This record gives sequence, C-alpha cells and structure tokens, in this order.
Amino acid sequence: MARQPASAQRPQEVLPDRLNSDHFLVHKTNPLSLESKRSSLGRGPITDTGRLFVRNNLPLPSSSIVEKADDWVLELGGLIKGGSITLRELKTYPFETLAMVLQCSGNGRGFFEHNPSGSPWKTGAAGAVLWTGVRLSVLLSRYGGPQNEAKYITATGGEVLPQGIERDSVVVERSIPLRKGMKDCLLAWELNGQPIPLTHGGPLRFVVPGYFGCNQIKYVRKIAATKTQSSAKIQQTGYRFRPIGEKGASDQPSMWRMPVKSWFNGPGSDGSPLTEGMNTFYGVAFSGERGISKVEVSLDKGQSWVEAKLVGDDFGPSSWRTFLFKTQLKVGSYTLHSRATDKAGEVQPKDRTPNERGYGHNGWFDHGLNIRVSNNLAIAASDPKSTHRQPVKNKPASSELSASAQRGKEIFLNKAEPSCGVCHTLSDAGTVGAVGPNLDQLKPAQTEVMMAVRNGVGAMPDYGSKLSATELGDLATYVVEAAKR
Amino acid sequence: MARQPASAQRPQEVLPDRLNSDHFLVHKTNPLSLESKRSSLGRGPITDTGRLFVRNNLPLPSSSIVEKADDWVLELGGLIKGGSITLRELKTYPFETLAMVLQCSGNGRGFFEHNPSGSPWKTGAAGAVLWTGVRLSVLLSRYGGPQNEAKYITATGGEVLPQGIERDSVVVERSIPLRKGMKDCLLAWELNGQPIPLTHGGPLRFVVPGYFGCNQIKYVRKIAATKTQSSAKIQQTGYRFRPIGEKGASDQPSMWRMPVKSWFNGPGSDGSPLTEGMNTFYGVAFSGERGISKVEVSLDKGQSWVEAKLVGDDFGPSSWRTFLFKTQLKVGSYTLHSRATDKAGEVQPKDRTPNERGYGHNGWFDHGLNIRVSNNLAIAASDPKSTHRQPVKNKPASSELSASAQRGKEIFLNKAEPSCGVCHTLSDAGTVGAVGPNLDQLKPAQTEVMMAVRNGVGAMPDYGSKLSATELGDLATYVVEAAKR
Repeated sequence: MARQPASAQRPQEVLPDRLNSDHFLVHKTNPLSLESKRSSLGRGPITDTGRLFVRNNLPLPSSSIVEKADDWVLELGGLIKGGSITLRELKTYPFETLAMVLQCSGNGRGFFEHNPSGSPWKTGAAGAVLWTGVRLSVLLSRYGGPQNEAKYITATGGEVLPQGIERDSVVVERSIPLRKGMKDCLLAWELNGQPIPLTHGGPLRFVVPGYFGCNQIKYVRKIAATKTQSSAKIQQTGYRFRPIGEKGASDQPSMWRMPVKSWFNGPGSDGSPLTEGMNTFYGVAFSGERGISKVEVSLDKGQSWVEAKLVGDDFGPSSWRTFLFKTQLKVGSYTLHSRATDKAGEVQPKDRTPNERGYGHNGWFDHGLNIRVSNNLAIAASDPKSTHRQPVKNKPASSELSASAQRGKEIFLNKAEPSCGVCHTLSDAGTVGAVGPNLDQLKPAQTEVMMAVRNGVGAMPDYGSKLSATELGDLATYVVEAAKR
Repeated sequence: MARQPASAQRPQEVLPDRLNSDHFLVHKTNPLSLESKRSSLGRGPITDTGRLFVRNNLPLPSSSIVEKADDWVLELGGLIKGGSITLRELKTYPFETLAMVLQCSGNGRGFFEHNPSGSPWKTGAAGAVLWTGVRLSVLLSRYGGPQNEAKYITATGGEVLPQGIERDSVVVERSIPLRKGMKDCLLAWELNGQPIPLTHGGPLRFVVPGYFGCNQIKYVRKIAATKTQSSAKIQQTGYRFRPIGEKGASDQPSMWRMPVKSWFNGPGSDGSPLTEGMNTFYGVAFSGERGISKVEVSLDKGQSWVEAKLVGDDFGPSSWRTFLFKTQLKVGSYTLHSRATDKAGEVQPKDRTPNERGYGHNGWFDHGLNIRVSNNLAIAASDPKSTHRQPVKNKPASSELSASAQRGKEIFLNKAEPSCGVCHTLSDAGTVGAVGPNLDQLKPAQTEVMMAVRNGVGAMPDYGSKLSATELGDLATYVVEAAKR
C-alpha cells in the first residue's frame, strides 16, 4: 500500500532527515550542499521542508541534540545579568511565528563566469519558511538587556570543531547589528510546524529576518551582545562582498540584508515541455525586510515589460510573494524574465555585480526561465464543446454603450468573481450562463440589478464587499443598457 | 550520519507516504484512520503534512495516480458545455493558495458517552493547511457555467469501489450548495508546497473552505452542477446531524460549515510534565468561513475567564488562529479551558450537542487540557543572576505621575517592542539597560524623547510606525516626568 517513489529504480543518495534526493541537485554530501531543483519548488507561498535547500559549513552534529532537544543549552553573554537557558525553559516564554526567505549568500553563483569557489547554486539555494520561537529582545530583556557599548549580536553555532585547527578559522559565528538583533530576530525551535530537523539547525536556530542564510546560525549555542564583530574568519574576511581578485577584509560589506530579487520557477523548468496555448507561469519575488510592490515580466529580454499578478496573502516583509503571468504561447522556445520592485522603490537590476565569491546575485537577466513550447503532447482530456446550446457570438463593438456601461462590461466579464456570465446569459457580453435569469429576456431595472449584486439573491452571491459603489453602479448600468440592445 | 528516529527501538506501524507513526494514534490502517497526537501539533499556524490526521472512507487507490499526476482526468458535468480536463491542462490556469482548517466531522467523537460508531477522535482529527489550485468558478466559467436549475456542486472521489455492492452505498460523493461552490472552492493539486500525497487525496482534491472534511473529496474525478444532492448514502443519510437513536434522513442538517471551536494543544499534553513558574500555553481557534475575534481562558471550569493573546498573521476566515496564555503556576494539577468567539459574534458553547454519530462537537468543556505541574524537573540552565550591577528596585507607586505619564509608563514597560528598559536605565520603571543613555542622568527634554522614539537614533530603532502620535506623546511625558523624580 505504501507509495513507491517514482525514482525507486535508480540508486539514491543516502541523505539525512529522510530527505529525498529526487528534489535536489546534490552538490556535496559532507558538509551537506543540496540545491532545490527549480521544478521542485511548489506554487504555494511556503516551501515544503523536504524540498528546502540545505547548506552546512561543517559536518552535521550528532542527532542526539535533536532527540534530546529540550536539554539544549543556550549560553547568554554580554548582558547585564549573565546566564544560560535550556530550550525547555525557553519554551515557557511567549512565542511568535514569522515567514521568511532563507537564501544562501551564494545563490546565483552558478551564473558567474569567473568560476568562484563554493557550490554553483543557480536559483535553488532559497526557500520561504515559517519559523516559530521567542523574540530575542524578549529573552534579553529578562536578563537586563545588553551591556553598555554593545553594538552587535553575535551568535555561535554548536558544530563540533575539527581538532588542531585554530577556532576562529572554522567556527560558525556571525555578528549582526545590535539594532537588528533587538528588532525582530527569533530564537526558533520550530520550522513549518515541526521541530527543526538537524539538517536545518535543530534543536535551536537563530533567525534574522531578511538577512542572508549565513547569519541564521544553526544549533545556536551562544548569543552575546558584543562591542565588536566576531573574530571568526567567516565574519572578518568571509561573507564579504569584494572585487574579483581581492582578499576579504573587514571593511568590505558583510552579507547581511538581501536585496530585491525575483525569478520564475515554472512551469517548463528543468526541461519539461509545455503545450501551446494558454499557460500560467509562476515565480517568487522578495526583498529583505521590505516586501514587494510589483513584478514585471518580459518575453523580449527586457525591451518591453508587462505587470505580473501577485497572488495569495502577503506573509510579511521578509517572505516572498508568488506572482503569476498568464499568456498564450505558440510553438517555440522562449525566455521569461521577471523584474521585481520592492516597497522602498528599489528595482531589481539587470546585471549581477561582479564579485570574488559570487555573492548576492540579484540581476534579472541571468535568472530568466528558458522554456520550450510544443504541440505534440498527448492531452487526455477533450476540449470543451457545446453540448447544450451554442455560445452567442460576442458583438464586435460596444461603441454605443455609455462610458459607465463600458466600465461595467469589464466588471461583468472580468472583475466580478465569480464572473457574471457563469450564471447569466447576456448577448452583448457573449455569455451563455443558465443558472440565473437570462438578462436579455429579463431586461432588469437599474435598482433590481443593484440590489441583486449588492446583497445576493437565491444562489447568487453578494458582491457588495468586493465591488465599490461606483463599480456597482457601472455594472448595473451596463446590464440595463446591454439588455435593451 | 542519517538521523535515527527516536522510536527506532520499538516496532512501527508501516504507514504509506513515509508517515511516521510516532506522531499518530493509529485507529485503523485500512481504510486509514490516523489521529494526530495532541502533542504532535506545533505552535506554528500551519500543520506539518507529516503530522496531519488521515481519514479515508475506502482503501487507498493505486499510487500510480500520483506518480502520473498530470494524466489525471477530471470529468465535468451539468455545465453548458460538456467536457473533461487533465490535471496537466488544469495547471495552465491561474491558481491561488488558501489556508484552511481540515477537520473530520467526527472530531471530538471520543468525548461522547453513548459510544457512537466511528473512530473515537478527541482533538486530533484537525489541522490547518495551505492548498494551491484553481478556483472552481474560474474553471466552470470556461465551460459556460452551470446549467439552468443547478442548485448543488457534486464531487465524486476516485476510489476503486468494491465489486458486488450497490454504488450509492459506498461511493464517496458529496454535494454542497452551488453558491458555496462558486464562491471560493478550489481544485487543488498542492498541499503545503508539495504535490498532494496519496493519503491526502492526490493528485487532485476538491477543497471547500470552512466545511467539514467529508466535503473535501479526495482523488476527485468528477465535478458536476446538479439539481439535487447526490444519491450516495454518505449524502442522503450519512453525515447528518441527528438525535441519538434516530436513523439518518435527508431532511436532517448535513455536515457542511464548521462551527466555532477552540482548544489548547500544550505544553503538558499527552502527560508530559511541566515545571512550576511561568508557562506559556498555546492552542488553536477557528470558525468556518468566519475567522476568530477573541479567545478566553479559564482555569476554574468556566467560573471566570481572561482573554488570551492571538499571535501571528491571520491566514484568512477558514484557517485557525494560534492563541497564547502566559501564566504562573504552582505545583498541582490543572485543566485549561478555552472559549472562542468568531467574527460573527458566535461564542463556543460549553457542552456538546448529543447526536447519534458524535458529529460536530465544539463544546469547550470536554476539550479542556489536563496538565500536571511539578517542581522536580532537572533544569540545566542557571537562573539569570546579576553579575554586573543590581537591578534598581521599582518604586512602589507612580501616584505623582500625570495621567499621560502613567499611560506612558505602561508603554515604556510593556507596549514598546523592544521594551525601552532593555537599553535604558530609568529608576521609576525599575529598568537597568545599559546600551543607550541612562535616562535618570540624561533627563531629556520632551522633544528629544519624541524625536528619538519617532525616528530612532544610533542603535535605537524607530517606534514611529508602531506607536500612535498620542502614545509617543505619553511615552515622552513619562520619561521626562520620571527622570526628574
């Protein structure tokens, strides 16, 4: 009865946490470096934990730390009162949940041409997840808050460090500005509704909304308010944005906030073919701490742009928005580019900024989705065909309609949801619905239409909360004018 | 390197879809009836798919239907134009995502005393999930909409029916009002960011937001607009709310919209012990199509109530809200009751309504969480202790403060986030923060405080978007008055 994975016939990588290698490009297995396939990410706003990329700096700690999660000890430093706290005790605090894009600094590195060191991620070192835990500022206030002159929050990972190597050269320890740490960071023990798995930093992870993944310290074992940034190599010289050929230095920008970025994920990614005709493409757009105001789409490498539709709820300024682009495509090959604008007005640039380690790539050009549209797919379903009555041919022009009625026609056909024509026949609109009255025959009065649309009647839903008073009026005007024609 | 499940030592039920029986009470394995343990549900707003209850009316279909998901054919009936559509083609339509509570009609049946037939669910036949798919009204409009006189949407499941038994007696087929079907229902192929697994109705499920689980037809193979309700037994006489001892009949209420309900999930559920002192309890509250306006908590079986805190984003009117209740508890045994009020003003009742099949239990009394608080847990962490300076003792009264300053003190201590005292010392407030200036010494002017709070300064965040102008004024007044004392 158990479902057989589609890939049962070919050998699979053995991955921890029951991860299924079908969903990943396996760059490395120790330390883990798993990229989500572009076609693995779903259309929904939250990435399934089993499809979320994994990137570890060091080998995984013992699984005993997640099996005895509540015994995990977090040390606190640089506060007015010293101390430490177990996860068991941390769970007695009020908690919250936030949605956030988790993205590796090197996501997009695979597009750089100078072959920077590190995993050659393209789009798949990113996902959007729900973290649940205690706000850092709430915990620190219990300990009197940061000491005088603290400027950073420094978080230390609980990896077992290799012997015989200087600690600073390998320790996973990162600093962020104190102001950011006190604003909205979490100490999280839950990821997408389950205890954080070991691969994603369980039992406890430091979560810095809107910042790159390197700051989201896994198995966090110490949080300190510090006067200076960590002396760890990955803080002092690593994760620095620097010109090609230059060495890392502490005066170069650190990989903190993620800039505005977007890309299409499908359909048609990873070489899967598409059928000609209507297709709805989907992608993701985000900007750390800012949120997205719009996404534009180009099919001609940026010569012209049309606006995409943002769908679903806005999960907050550091999560991503799903966008849709519905279009008719003929047989051929295409590249779909997307360009996001964030709520601060920053527009995603065309090109990557050259830099030694291939960090922070947010240029739209390289992230285009290449698709192939064919006409030879077996479509098992029949096309819709009229079995009851012929659709009434839409009259070509509505030039005799008043301006209000012309606006109303657009509402009748497209804006009202469900669309009016689903239930009503109206020749001018070319609709043949048969659930409600035939409007050509009924020829209703303006007030009748207004009342029905505003309040609903019988099986008809009310549109009063969805349409403005002006729109209601335009819609009624249209129905009255069109039914008289 | 792979993580060893905690339960590796004891025999496990073999469950489909890699489900881990540790998270469930296994009522039956064929057809599947898996109840989420009360302690398995997380604190976040969305239930992990691996912890979501499973309830099937019939044995699972072949897993080939999810392996070849795009070939799945949905038949359409009762529309102006006839037809059928593959999932491959359905995916070319614009889609959306909605969050929704999925709950079995019999959730809470285990509390009834007349031993109704069916799985004895207590709280665990419910979860909140994200469905992604095409809105039914969008699809049906492509086929001209429902035929004249249609009153229902009838959905048929794709289970293989046992031979030699009358179809109506076993078929999984349910009808809902046409108006509901055209309002917000989905044909979904994605659950929480992954293709719907077989156990949860993949490749395609009919989703009816705010309605009980029996209406969310799995492996849906036909959708029809119909003049009458389905002739299936589970529509005509099954899933009917009827007095104990009476037979099912089509004039009894059908299990459609879910009424207002809430309960605590933890901590301390399933017998896990708690430590005396502060604890933060969490639960879920929902009301189909309506959303939740408040949740109250009682520790004395309903004699007195205090309001709980709703946390996280509101995921829409048919999802659930997580609520928190933070309290200090001494050693002993307690029962925590919660009582939700929905946005239509309906209050969760105290008692269940007796009915033959144990359906629709939303009484708060039976759903109380029984906990045991002890003082003998090994807490590995040290208590916070002052290592740098002693906290300043809070002055007992603020009677000399103006009314504005008294309101400002509340903001200083509790409403502002991060709390002001995390960074500032102010004797009147009893705070000892050392990151920002000592306000007792600085004795700032009203405008200085206003500017700093509104716009931020140095490491200090701005509170301008979080506090109203009146609150800013009260806060500044308080700091000025308190620093002079």
